[in-house]
Amino acid sequence: MADQRARFDVVGLGNAIVDVIGEADEALLAELDLDKGMMTLLDEPRMHALYARMGPAVEASGGSCANTMAGLASLGGRAAYVGKVASDQLGEIFGHDIRSAGVAFSSRPLTDGPPTARCLVFVTPDAQRTMGTYLGACVELGPKDVDHALIRDAAITYLEGYLWDRPDAKAACLRAAEIAHANGREIALTLSDPFCVDRWRDEFVSLIEAHVDILIANEAEITSLFQTDDFETALGEARRRCRLVAATRGPHGSTVASADEAHVVPAAPVPHVLDTTGAGDLFAAGLLYGLTHGLPLPACGRLGSATAGAILGQFGARSEHALAPLIETAAA
Amino acid sequence: MADQRARFDVVGLGNAIVDVIGEADEALLAELDLDKGMMTLLDEPRMHALYARMGPAVEASGGSCANTMAGLASLGGRAAYVGKVASDQLGEIFGHDIRSAGVAFSSRPLTDGPPTARCLVFVTPDAQRTMGTYLGACVELGPKDVDHALIRDAAITYLEGYLWDRPDAKAACLRAAEIAHANGREIALTLSDPFCVDRWRDEFVSLIEAHVDILIANEAEITSLFQTDDFETALGEARRRCRLVAATRGPHGSTVASADEAHVVPAAPVPHVLDTTGAGDLFAAGLLYGLTHGLPLPACGRLGSATAGAILGQFGARSEHALAPLIETAAA
Repeated sequence: MADQRARFDVVGLGNAIVDVIGEADEALLAELDLDKGMMTLLDEPRMHALYARMGPAVEASGGSCANTMAGLASLGGRAAYVGKVASDQLGEIFGHDIRSAGVAFSSRPLTDGPPTARCLVFVTPDAQRTMGTYLGACVELGPKDVDHALIRDAAITYLEGYLWDRPDAKAACLRAAEIAHANGREIALTLSDPFCVDRWRDEFVSLIEAHVDILIANEAEITSLFQTDDFETALGEARRRCRLVAATRGPHGSTVASADEAHVVPAAPVPHVLDTTGAGDLFAAGLLYGLTHGLPLPACGRLGSATAGAILGQFGARSEHALAPLIETAAA
Repeated sequence: MADQRARFDVVGLGNAIVDVIGEADEALLAELDLDKGMMTLLDEPRMHALYARMGPAVEASGGSCANTMAGLASLGGRAAYVGKVASDQLGEIFGHDIRSAGVAFSSRPLTDGPPTARCLVFVTPDAQRTMGTYLGACVELGPKDVDHALIRDAAITYLEGYLWDRPDAKAACLRAAEIAHANGREIALTLSDPFCVDRWRDEFVSLIEAHVDILIANEAEITSLFQTDDFETALGEARRRCRLVAATRGPHGSTVASADEAHVVPAAPVPHVLDTTGAGDLFAAGLLYGLTHGLPLPACGRLGSATAGAILGQFGARSEHALAPLIETAAA
């Protein structure tokens, strides 16, 4: 049962990005000096240089948090999104796709400045994805884009760790956190990427202590955050600081824990993993749906596993099929 | 063995289009007044209106003839392409994808005028595709875009019937045909679409009689062209006018015929047809590869069936995998 006092279950803040997805072999990644499995930020000349070396590609709307909001809407949740595109063809594509997925999106496009962001996604034959992101118009996201009424009216405001790479976007997140807590709402944060954690470790720890109710991370991110090799140690550190922690471990499943209880949830069986793009984003979608619809904690984790599993068997980070049928099984 | 006197096996002239591919149900097609399985031309306002009703989509370079040239290059053939994009983001995507597929493409982009063309592809649950095309920058393709040396140096010049929808593009085709025949080269034509045949029936018959050596069509197109319900009758009419005719019949395979011989080729088995987009285009790629590499006529047809079959099990009209391994089986 959704919180009827909230107009939205979740509003997400993130980098609004169109993915450019092509296949690559390991040798090309090495030659292009890309860290496999990671996200590297690119300036415009390097983005063009890398694109010129990429094979034929397909384009699909992406952005970690936007993928999560599209997944939440596909589950039947009430989702809204805040992010910055330019008024260009890729921006039109981004806006069309997120709105037609059922997500409220009314951020004003940038009319004068860099183009819409894109992420070059190099998919290797082992289904791993290695990303190079040109932030483009995203760098203009700032506190002025945070709609007070939207944050006030959402049960959870979900922040993407990647936003910390830009000072104005960070300020937007802090503004959203203030509004949310002043209205008795909750803040969720995804750590996004281990390199992002490396860049912002101290700030993330401070943010979590001051503002984060729900922390979502994978094993590499959460162990990096607390500078330990031990998953359980990192989990314990996080549980002392947040009401709820959801930490994923790829094929080894995930742990969803509050201060009092911890539940280990297996990964969903996937017959053929085609592309891991979006698995973390879709885990967050299932988890956030469960949390905003009163599912017990283990069911929230199971739904996260199921939605993550649903994306692994396809190319790209937005589900080709409605996810809602997964809810009943997870809740059982 | 390719013709070593030619720098290219095939140069194709076509509408340079980026596909916008989304799922749709039958009710939406009816509501939008789209003829299922057909291609409808859209002006810009109608394109925007239809796009607003389409669900989340992915973008992939398309264009019937461009798909064929990309398939030919994937087989190892030497392909070039002539088509008009604008100097915008979709034009950049189109240029990147066709060049990175290994096709020579140096048509000058349009800097002042309509944007790059797009085709809204509505895929229904039965894997049929229904298309709405906004021609955009394609309407500027004309005789000035026909590079004399390129046509002279290609064993076959391949024309897309869709080009007949614009007088300047038609003039470009006729110019290319003159150059090709003046240099002892051949002209191939695809009829593209039964509605396109309806629009240009008389002109197509005159064109075929005057200029076409190799005619490629599906059953609906060739029977419409000769205004008969009988496939064999239509085939006979075509054989009297062209050196070679290749006519496809979907799951019933194809017939490849010269004046003296006719070979019925079965369709390749496809375990799960996901999307029929591009099947005709890829049939043409296999056929043209065979014809320019000295394969016997039945092997040309088998390779066309195999390349068409390879595209049916995936979403979109450009193969995700190299097609060259199909050659050996077809030639055996």
